[in-house]
Amino acid sequence: MAEEEKFTSLENIGEFGLIERLTRDFPLTQGSTIKGIGDDAAILEHLSGRTLVSTDMLVEGVHFDLSYVPPQHLGYKAVVVNLSDIYAMGGRPTQITVNLAISNRFGIEYLDKIYEGIRHACEVYEVDLVGGDTTSSYSGLILSITAIGVADENEIIERSGAKENDLLVVSGDLGGAYMGLQVLEREKQVFQGNPEVQPQLGGNEYVLERQLKPEARKDIPELLAKLEVHPTAMIDISDGLSSEALHLSKQSKLGVAIYEEKIPIDPQVFKLCEEFKLNASTIALNGGEDYELLFTIPIEEHDKIKGNPHLTVIGHMTDANAGTNLITRDGASIPLQAQGWNALRDSKEPS
Amino acid sequence: MAEEEKFTSLENIGEFGLIERLTRDFPLTQGSTIKGIGDDAAILEHLSGRTLVSTDMLVEGVHFDLSYVPPQHLGYKAVVVNLSDIYAMGGRPTQITVNLAISNRFGIEYLDKIYEGIRHACEVYEVDLVGGDTTSSYSGLILSITAIGVADENEIIERSGAKENDLLVVSGDLGGAYMGLQVLEREKQVFQGNPEVQPQLGGNEYVLERQLKPEARKDIPELLAKLEVHPTAMIDISDGLSSEALHLSKQSKLGVAIYEEKIPIDPQVFKLCEEFKLNASTIALNGGEDYELLFTIPIEEHDKIKGNPHLTVIGHMTDANAGTNLITRDGASIPLQAQGWNALRDSKEPS
Repeated sequence: MAEEEKFTSLENIGEFGLIERLTRDFPLTQGSTIKGIGDDAAILEHLSGRTLVSTDMLVEGVHFDLSYVPPQHLGYKAVVVNLSDIYAMGGRPTQITVNLAISNRFGIEYLDKIYEGIRHACEVYEVDLVGGDTTSSYSGLILSITAIGVADENEIIERSGAKENDLLVVSGDLGGAYMGLQVLEREKQVFQGNPEVQPQLGGNEYVLERQLKPEARKDIPELLAKLEVHPTAMIDISDGLSSEALHLSKQSKLGVAIYEEKIPIDPQVFKLCEEFKLNASTIALNGGEDYELLFTIPIEEHDKIKGNPHLTVIGHMTDANAGTNLITRDGASIPLQAQGWNALRDSKEPS
Repeated sequence: MAEEEKFTSLENIGEFGLIERLTRDFPLTQGSTIKGIGDDAAILEHLSGRTLVSTDMLVEGVHFDLSYVPPQHLGYKAVVVNLSDIYAMGGRPTQITVNLAISNRFGIEYLDKIYEGIRHACEVYEVDLVGGDTTSSYSGLILSITAIGVADENEIIERSGAKENDLLVVSGDLGGAYMGLQVLEREKQVFQGNPEVQPQLGGNEYVLERQLKPEARKDIPELLAKLEVHPTAMIDISDGLSSEALHLSKQSKLGVAIYEEKIPIDPQVFKLCEEFKLNASTIALNGGEDYELLFTIPIEEHDKIKGNPHLTVIGHMTDANAGTNLITRDGASIPLQAQGWNALRDSKEPS
């Protein structure tokens, strides 16, 4: 479905020429960036507070399918998923580095579009691109990004700080990104069967945007500060609610109870789950890629978030002996399983 | 030539199980590492000075050939080439993150060996492994590493600080890594022709070590400090002397003159160049991967390094109008060309 326009082979431009071209429109805006691209290393100055570092790799065919992911969106999403980790620590992202491996089937114009998306994300989230490496690959496209951020010592929220009886809270809603992927996969199948058929994407805008152009929840730490809510532990939801709740439990050495009926799910996700004959709760628990924030707060702070449209209390932390459970709509208690998407199994299907 | 022993499929271990296994023997030793692996981001504290960040990607088939690169050496080298960039800034590396993409043809035992090499490099260079991502790939093995370091503001040496008449100095000797690659490629051809033949690697230990297990020149900044020598610009030699000298010239807005007869080349490299019918100067200029340091010093400091076995003056910086030239043994002046190995052309042959 990708439109092919101009194609300039990468072999016509040297590695340094390519880096210069791709990174020329990236102004440095962060006070902590002393020097960006152009030397052996970037130079940063994080005078006060602590430096946060997070890194992720996105591999074509495993994490994305270029037959329906536009290159601008790929660049944008690759940055956003890394920044999400910095927000999940209670920090503010300041810089990124981008490593890109590409095969000769991509022209320079295609890379320009990826970097257009990267640049857009840098603008929206106010981070500087300060380094990277560009190399060839024998098969697919691989993006490896490192995000750097800052936080004062007392602002940092680790996974391990939850206390027994803390409330478990999630931002936004879950399952959308996964259902967006299902819609895209379905239309790809249809297209492959008959290239004359135009994809039927109308009415599914919300889930498609959740899949193709997710946002990191930059606004949530700001909102929590404004509400004077003090999360005790936090994580971002990249692999699915179930998997992330298990991380919080394990590292805080506690149990957890999640109430199925409380899990926030958008009506469009419910509708599509019916269409695809999938269980919406399973999708929300195991779908992944929603990049919402999952955190715990002291029960005394419940009043401060009650009724807030961005935040939903979905459960609470329990004694470790109580285990890690989903309490179903009919009151049954089922052990949570980390069936989130496992990048080592080459499959995007949650169980 | 690789020995296959035990093979445990990656599918039998989850992504988190794999990360835990691979990173369990990495103690944190740096005071600046507050928290390593195990949360959304690593937490560092660089209280004084500046933070340096450098990143590189190594792709199977482009940067390395697993038929003759042992996995321990691959892990070691992948770390070292990144640390080299931090030393080239005048800094001290403190942390690394490692992203790894792998196909199912690799067993867990193989990855253990790669991490054995990574761990060995962490011990030798006193850096902490603080983060990373492990994912599957549809074809080869890809390692993407980010190195973080520190330096006081006045210790940092950029590429742009060279002055006219400064001497151009290189550590160690050049061309060895490239000739090591030639020996390995030759033995691979022989082996493919007749698997019964044992590889003839004896007598070539020095160049093989330069290729398979290079070291970053951690000792050179220490030596320069002891000698009270103050480099004005510095870069590490990853793409070849010619390419790196052009970077120094361009960023310092100067010309450069390199004297062919001064370029330090090991006798083993000369001998192999005769055997392979290659010009040793060309190999030293364009071979790359030597990871020596190339730097400029004020001419007044010449006496401090004269006769030092680790350092060789190979030229000097000139007015920009004089251009960037190699002065050959017979006195001819030839423009330097950045014919260093270009990772975008899928070729390891220098011109």
